[in-house]
Amino acid sequence: MLSTIEAREVILKHATPLGVERVSILEALGRVIAEEVRAARQQPPWDNSAMDGFAVRAADALGASPGTPVRLRVAGEIMAGTMPSRAVMPGQAARIMTGAPMPRGADAVVRVEDTESDDPEWVRILKPVEPGRDVRRAGEDQEVGDLLVGAGTRLRPGEIGVIAGAPRAFVSVRRVPTVAVIATGDELAEPDTAPSSAQIVNTSSYSIAAMVREAGARAVVLPIARDDRASLDAVFAEALHADVVVSVGGVSVGERDLVRESLEASGVTMRFWKVRVTPGKPLAFGTAGRKLVFGLPGNPVSCMVSFELFVRPALLKLAGHARIFRRTLCATMTASVKKRKDYVHFLRVRLDREGDRWLATPMGQQGSGVLRSMAWANGLAVGPREMDRLEAGMEVQVIHLDDCWATAEDRPV
Amino acid sequence: MLSTIEAREVILKHATPLGVERVSILEALGRVIAEEVRAARQQPPWDNSAMDGFAVRAADALGASPGTPVRLRVAGEIMAGTMPSRAVMPGQAARIMTGAPMPRGADAVVRVEDTESDDPEWVRILKPVEPGRDVRRAGEDQEVGDLLVGAGTRLRPGEIGVIAGAPRAFVSVRRVPTVAVIATGDELAEPDTAPSSAQIVNTSSYSIAAMVREAGARAVVLPIARDDRASLDAVFAEALHADVVVSVGGVSVGERDLVRESLEASGVTMRFWKVRVTPGKPLAFGTAGRKLVFGLPGNPVSCMVSFELFVRPALLKLAGHARIFRRTLCATMTASVKKRKDYVHFLRVRLDREGDRWLATPMGQQGSGVLRSMAWANGLAVGPREMDRLEAGMEVQVIHLDDCWATAEDRPV
Repeated sequence: MLSTIEAREVILKHATPLGVERVSILEALGRVIAEEVRAARQQPPWDNSAMDGFAVRAADALGASPGTPVRLRVAGEIMAGTMPSRAVMPGQAARIMTGAPMPRGADAVVRVEDTESDDPEWVRILKPVEPGRDVRRAGEDQEVGDLLVGAGTRLRPGEIGVIAGAPRAFVSVRRVPTVAVIATGDELAEPDTAPSSAQIVNTSSYSIAAMVREAGARAVVLPIARDDRASLDAVFAEALHADVVVSVGGVSVGERDLVRESLEASGVTMRFWKVRVTPGKPLAFGTAGRKLVFGLPGNPVSCMVSFELFVRPALLKLAGHARIFRRTLCATMTASVKKRKDYVHFLRVRLDREGDRWLATPMGQQGSGVLRSMAWANGLAVGPREMDRLEAGMEVQVIHLDDCWATAEDRPV
Repeated sequence: MLSTIEAREVILKHATPLGVERVSILEALGRVIAEEVRAARQQPPWDNSAMDGFAVRAADALGASPGTPVRLRVAGEIMAGTMPSRAVMPGQAARIMTGAPMPRGADAVVRVEDTESDDPEWVRILKPVEPGRDVRRAGEDQEVGDLLVGAGTRLRPGEIGVIAGAPRAFVSVRRVPTVAVIATGDELAEPDTAPSSAQIVNTSSYSIAAMVREAGARAVVLPIARDDRASLDAVFAEALHADVVVSVGGVSVGERDLVRESLEASGVTMRFWKVRVTPGKPLAFGTAGRKLVFGLPGNPVSCMVSFELFVRPALLKLAGHARIFRRTLCATMTASVKKRKDYVHFLRVRLDREGDRWLATPMGQQGSGVLRSMAWANGLAVGPREMDRLEAGMEVQVIHLDDCWATAEDRPV
């Protein structure tokens, strides 16, 4: 049986980043850029004022103070968006707005609050300035040809601003995968129908669709497939239009588990069927050309854990991401918990920060049927294969499932 | 001048969570639920099998082993989705599928891999089972009336699965704010036009729109407002249809900064104009009824830092979130950096993990014009007011701007 790491290697070997599409910079957040963006212009295009005030020759303002102001003649006004027409000569100053180009001759800006004026022709400078003060230099941000954003970068708000300034309005990014989500089983009823007493509500289509969206991909939820070949064949034929198929249920070894048969008949080459991991041992993976097909265990918790460990990194790789895993952190167990020996066991825990360390509180109930535990947990503690128990006080690695926003109390400033 | 904390208190005092809308569970990811969801049915509705195998009386399988199998008569087959019609009597077993209801009489499931059968009438049990083994108990996940998800919860994939199982298809969630984004300034040109040599490219509308989306809100990017009252009045009239207005530029003390005048004429009550913070001192905040209006500094970096510190928490509060701040972490400075004394200075740093500690590398260039530094950085180190320098080796608090996905090398399993 494959280990978690071996299984993930097989999956990732078959996950080839998808093709490229052009999107506007308003839609590019979180996408992975598939080209280099280089500066087409110098930024700023010329020396300009960082403040509202007066462009001066710094030498003129030497020794200025509120008691001994330096009086300069106001030689024009430079607005943002216009080029100055004349130079600032010794003894002169030009009124200048934030962002406006510096006039020739001037080498510093005196902020308006460090000046006084009761005559539009004259200004009194109350403070000396060093040359370059409050002047943004031409090319300070970028020179023509500078590499602004490298291919393969995940686009955050800062990169999007930089690309706008290149200037560019569209960028080529990797396509995000479309993922067909299918729950299988005769026992399942959709939540918007009135389930009979013999039925179980289909929760997995909805939790898995949310996990797909959380990974930045597009989910297409298909109707429940019933436990017969005709139903499965029809649903998989439709599903294989997507880049990735995630089927939930029907992958264990029972006689009526027809999923494998149907997948193989649909042209899917199965790569493995089991992984030495708890929860989630019956995990199927196959390929159809460049499409990836996952068969997750039917249990509502197991399928989510399996998705987290095996499907999510593949979706991120398809979308072009280099960083495809969540961070793990080291936490101290607050209680003891049993685990399955000989299996890496991913235990649902709640992470809480206490000063500079993290505490991991295991669920009382690790039963894989208990979906609420998945809502309560924000981490998966990694229980090593050789152990049959994690003890209170032990340090464990925990996969952090949540970005864990903080409340005001957690925040020093 | 207000401190960072005081300014944020004023803003948050005026930020009242928005109203409620019904969305389907397929669209509810990341939203804040505005109602309690309670279980309308027991889950599972009856004891059921956790595995494919044979439902037995555990007492019958005592002492079973591969050498001394226990032979039981197969009395029927129970499929998922059907109720068993008869009980399992002593000496009998019922073939059972994962998820199928347990038949009366049986108290455990023997997994199919622990059995042998060459005759459909008989099965040989190769392993004893304890009572309850591989049986999921009725109500194990939820009892009727159980509180499944509390009002105010941010909906993650686990909660969405739980709500589906309630069963519910729609939920009431807080509306997310619509945010009008406006760049102001005669010097600005849009990135898709050919900027003249006297113009600066408008990057802030795009970086801020991305920050709005990253905070889960909806951005509406308005055309650039020019530095005259007619243009500003027209754009603000349109902008005030949104829940929040974020205007960039035109908030310092220069004579041609008409933003304040135009906002007040539009019915906005200004609450403050400056905060003792770097970058971002000229920060305006006002209200118009329940609408929030922010005037951010025009500098491309300053406006992003101001958004992060002041606008993002307000947007999250409007959307109903309780946790509205990013986590901070404690990191060690890798180099010294100057800061502005008497101001809390938020310094752009890159965070890297080294074992169990974090390193914060300051940007060589903290100049607020250098937008690329914002792309490069993934943290804001908090430089305390009283210092004029952060030294290498010092421990600092850093706001973590990024969820920092990991590469395979960072990941132990």
